[in-house]
Amino acid sequence: MWVYVNGQFVKQEDAVISVFDQGFLYGDGVFETLRAYQGRLFLPERHIARLHRSCARIGIAASLPENDWVSVLEEVLSRNQLQESLLRITITRGEGTAGQLFSSAATPTVVVCPRAIPELPRSLHQEGVSVALLQIRRNASSAIPAEVKSLNFLNNILAKREASQQGAYEGLMLNMEGFVAEGATSNVFFVESGRLCTPSLACGILPGVTREVVIQLAREAGIPIEEGSYEPERLISVDECFLTNTAVQILPVKEIDHCQIGAGCSGSITMRLQAGYQQMIAQALEG
Amino acid sequence: MWVYVNGQFVKQEDAVISVFDQGFLYGDGVFETLRAYQGRLFLPERHIARLHRSCARIGIAASLPENDWVSVLEEVLSRNQLQESLLRITITRGEGTAGQLFSSAATPTVVVCPRAIPELPRSLHQEGVSVALLQIRRNASSAIPAEVKSLNFLNNILAKREASQQGAYEGLMLNMEGFVAEGATSNVFFVESGRLCTPSLACGILPGVTREVVIQLAREAGIPIEEGSYEPERLISVDECFLTNTAVQILPVKEIDHCQIGAGCSGSITMRLQAGYQQMIAQALEG
Repeated sequence: MWVYVNGQFVKQEDAVISVFDQGFLYGDGVFETLRAYQGRLFLPERHIARLHRSCARIGIAASLPENDWVSVLEEVLSRNQLQESLLRITITRGEGTAGQLFSSAATPTVVVCPRAIPELPRSLHQEGVSVALLQIRRNASSAIPAEVKSLNFLNNILAKREASQQGAYEGLMLNMEGFVAEGATSNVFFVESGRLCTPSLACGILPGVTREVVIQLAREAGIPIEEGSYEPERLISVDECFLTNTAVQILPVKEIDHCQIGAGCSGSITMRLQAGYQQMIAQALEG
Repeated sequence: MWVYVNGQFVKQEDAVISVFDQGFLYGDGVFETLRAYQGRLFLPERHIARLHRSCARIGIAASLPENDWVSVLEEVLSRNQLQESLLRITITRGEGTAGQLFSSAATPTVVVCPRAIPELPRSLHQEGVSVALLQIRRNASSAIPAEVKSLNFLNNILAKREASQQGAYEGLMLNMEGFVAEGATSNVFFVESGRLCTPSLACGILPGVTREVVIQLAREAGIPIEEGSYEPERLISVDECFLTNTAVQILPVKEIDHCQIGAGCSGSITMRLQAGYQQMIAQALEG
């Protein structure tokens, strides 16, 4: 496997960073995960835009213009002969100055590597997955800005661990105010009487790229869409529920805390949006 | 410089970890910073105990018994001929399984390296430093357990950055409930009518080793000590205020948000505790 590290392509075993890198010492950096279909990047401009916003928000120079990011990502795909894959960009503040918690003079570290798409039986996109409502809360935006996809991902890892301990595929976190925020690694949508609902960005969630796309698809399809604050109790009685992220796309939820959602499989609005998403991928491949 | 990486001592330039290490990908790990005086470790057992608690809390095997940690730390000191230094232990969950957010089967990564003591004019221990009350809030314990000294340190870095932008040496964060929590890299104490006060652990703060020592020193000296929840407004009118951490020990605060604290230099109780701390170091060096 070939990995891009600070301007060079190196083999996996040489893809290393200093233990004095701020990313390793403090999680002082950001990342982005994109998906490639048939060897082509899907929506790279949206991911790169978010990457640049994340960097700006915590004061790291993003270091490459958009076109260069695309070239690097495409070279990671071609060198590794990848057709279907995730790609991860990591940018850290680089090696700090000894005795200082951070230094704005540091040269950022940039890594781009392939990441395996999580294995998931294809049937789950019809059957749906189990979700648990978690005790752990979503990091507050007042402590770490929610719009930054930072290397501080322990909150999400602990959430995934709690979900896994409950035998659930994904866990949903509430925000500090007690409203539904998002999954450990997904945004959440639900359908009530034909209306598509999802926690608003003001709930302190990551502005997911797939989330954005789904909202756009719903608008184009004339499905009423609402972004708001929702109490967790409300989720139990919804007609449909699904999760979104770059890797799993649109994944139906069949049960929450062992309560069946709707018919216990992908509902009609979920299926329309799944079809719309596939069509969007097909168009991107043609274009 | 020699660095310990996974059982071996390597030179600084070879002290690297894989870009696939969970510590680099997600800040999925913990750390500990100790101080050595005259080539001897100060209170290693307290730091190692906290390290083990941090590991246990997020499900990482701590991998070395206490005596072995001390041996490794002492070898880092001797190989680098260090007398006065900080030492940092980092433990991560190791290299994850592709396509999984975490894997309990991973072998932890262990790094022990020297860290420079932050340069600070000696006079500041009498004159005191400026502190700012920050907008950024302390990570909530319901999102990431406060007792874990994790690699998710971006909250602290952003706090230090905000303080620095305000021209202050340190910044104090409030917790989600609006009470004083702690500094970006320190715990805070203040004195009111002869009583020493400090935010309780229930405020969602890191249980600082120096904080613990100061509480113990105060008890031994018969200084009344109270741990509680304090509103930030209260800080402005206190008689004395100081910060604690392993690197700076006990550092007086001369002003908070440009309001002078007490006489604007180290107060009498602060000085007694500073003397007690120096005595404790002297005893450790004799023992």
